[in-house]
Amino acid sequence: MSRYWSPIVDRLVPYTPGEQPKDKVFAKLNTNENPYGPSPAALAAINKATDDRLRLYPDPESAELKNAIASTLKLGSDHIFVGNGSDEVLAHGFNAFFTGKASILFADITYSFYKTYCELYGIEHTKVPLTDSFEYDTRDYAVPCGGVVIANPNAPTGMAMPLSRIEQILEQNPDVVVLVDEAYVDFGADSAVDLVPHYDNLLVVQTFSKSRSLAGLRVGFAIAQPHLIEGLRRVKDSFNSYPIGRLSLEGALAAWTDRDWFDATRKKVIADREKVATQLGAQGFNILPSAANFVFATHKTVPAKTLLAELRARGILVRHFNQARIDNWLRISIGTSEECDKLLEATADILSNFGEAKP
Amino acid sequence: MSRYWSPIVDRLVPYTPGEQPKDKVFAKLNTNENPYGPSPAALAAINKATDDRLRLYPDPESAELKNAIASTLKLGSDHIFVGNGSDEVLAHGFNAFFTGKASILFADITYSFYKTYCELYGIEHTKVPLTDSFEYDTRDYAVPCGGVVIANPNAPTGMAMPLSRIEQILEQNPDVVVLVDEAYVDFGADSAVDLVPHYDNLLVVQTFSKSRSLAGLRVGFAIAQPHLIEGLRRVKDSFNSYPIGRLSLEGALAAWTDRDWFDATRKKVIADREKVATQLGAQGFNILPSAANFVFATHKTVPAKTLLAELRARGILVRHFNQARIDNWLRISIGTSEECDKLLEATADILSNFGEAKP
Repeated sequence: MSRYWSPIVDRLVPYTPGEQPKDKVFAKLNTNENPYGPSPAALAAINKATDDRLRLYPDPESAELKNAIASTLKLGSDHIFVGNGSDEVLAHGFNAFFTGKASILFADITYSFYKTYCELYGIEHTKVPLTDSFEYDTRDYAVPCGGVVIANPNAPTGMAMPLSRIEQILEQNPDVVVLVDEAYVDFGADSAVDLVPHYDNLLVVQTFSKSRSLAGLRVGFAIAQPHLIEGLRRVKDSFNSYPIGRLSLEGALAAWTDRDWFDATRKKVIADREKVATQLGAQGFNILPSAANFVFATHKTVPAKTLLAELRARGILVRHFNQARIDNWLRISIGTSEECDKLLEATADILSNFGEAKP
Repeated sequence: MSRYWSPIVDRLVPYTPGEQPKDKVFAKLNTNENPYGPSPAALAAINKATDDRLRLYPDPESAELKNAIASTLKLGSDHIFVGNGSDEVLAHGFNAFFTGKASILFADITYSFYKTYCELYGIEHTKVPLTDSFEYDTRDYAVPCGGVVIANPNAPTGMAMPLSRIEQILEQNPDVVVLVDEAYVDFGADSAVDLVPHYDNLLVVQTFSKSRSLAGLRVGFAIAQPHLIEGLRRVKDSFNSYPIGRLSLEGALAAWTDRDWFDATRKKVIADREKVATQLGAQGFNILPSAANFVFATHKTVPAKTLLAELRARGILVRHFNQARIDNWLRISIGTSEECDKLLEATADILSNFGEAKP
């Protein structure tokens, strides 16, 4: 506390990212990072751009990157906004479309940063409980509100919602922005991007951090009709004209263009996710159906906190959320095939210590 | 305009950065970029970090970079905050310390982004006119206010204020934050960093974009007592936990450490600035005394807008501001020695076309 702080600073409860330990080498299955490196073309493009031109500001419009994304998605580049990671894109989106509006709706169990943005911008919000099976019930979103935020697939559950239900929410709420956060969409859900031309209230947010394996560069983007993109641009240009550096622009552009690498690596992640889900299931875990690069798991007898500690002792980090309804669950990122095997061996070992028969 | 926008979006008048032309090779003396490349150590550090680790998030605390800055400045690392360019640091600073306070004070002629931040966060502001010779009069800042923002050296004038007058402003305003924006300080002004231990209301902001020639990476930082740094951190962690990517962290760290490169290049810029100022003076320009990597110039007979257009026609971009009191002035960045010579030849040529005798 400081008497110099703005009133808002007192009320902030910042988002806590997953642990990034420095003391020891862990199998980091706690922050949903891609186990495979980025496209070699991205590394080559960054190397090529690492020279005296770094003395110059980047293109404030990020035109080349926006053009490339737009071209693939068969949209005009005025349908694309890019930012310093999808967290920044989401922050600007909350400010541009939800500040000063009625209470916005999002699920009780979803990306916890949404609540933080609301605190930052003084946005009222209403948490809508997921069903007992952790699904969205679209009828819950047929109420007057200032906006809707949907993570699809949802985090930390990993569960995807069919596009027909996204459309239902869009149609139920024609006067407010429906933000669909698709951070994990490339691992198995249907993107709402194809709906963009049909709904002027749809804002889709994606990232280069997950399926394109560039968490270290910080690039995210939004797709929407130009009037929403213009709102984001006005906020961005009032905050930081140059949010994305030269190397991030070049790396993201090359990664976007290398479709083969993208497809090959995400398919490996998907295959390992299915294997992990099946085998954890055989070990007595309940696993939610995941369309993301992680699984959300609870064991029928051994508590999540016990598993968390035991896995950590075996050099494996997973994520636990101290939150009602999910405090007996673990979010486990899909690592390399070797890391997945290490995880499955570790859980088998832990469970056998707790008197669980091996499958 | 869109009915989906927040009320704030309508009121925003985004900052306009200097032109970044793509169609033609210009001598870019319009955005105060460093004419020399960054430290070779920075390029080497970036190359070394360009590998599969880009799949991983960067350190959300930027601990290594903060430690290096703190160590050089003989402060604890809890005195340092880093962000995605000093524009982001300034934005968070305005939000953390000025939102919800009384009207803040800054000069009528200064970095135009300050006004934009006020619009973004709904902060009231009062523009305090500089004197007729474009100096700060510290007595003007001895009034009740919600905060003070000083650019030192000021932009676009380039003029530095002695630290004794910064201290006077700090002492006149003990209950509010005095933000000293030192983007250009390394080109000839005294930094207020040494005052940080003595004033709990002082926030100093610096950047890697100018004297360390890394505008393309986007790294800025703030120096203050820990209670102010904590306010910034709370805002940052409610906006984007990972503002600085891995390559930016490595490049900035290496550039910070290479003191020899930093000193050699800024000395070259300073020497060329003095030469440009002297020779433009001989051509009939009035040049304000500059402690930055640019000069602010007006000609005794030829209008600034004419010079702007004529220089552009000769392949030289400089910056003009359509603003009362300075609309007959040009801000000219100091380029390489060759670019400075090209500029001086061009102005001589233009002036001779307008009937001005050569010096």
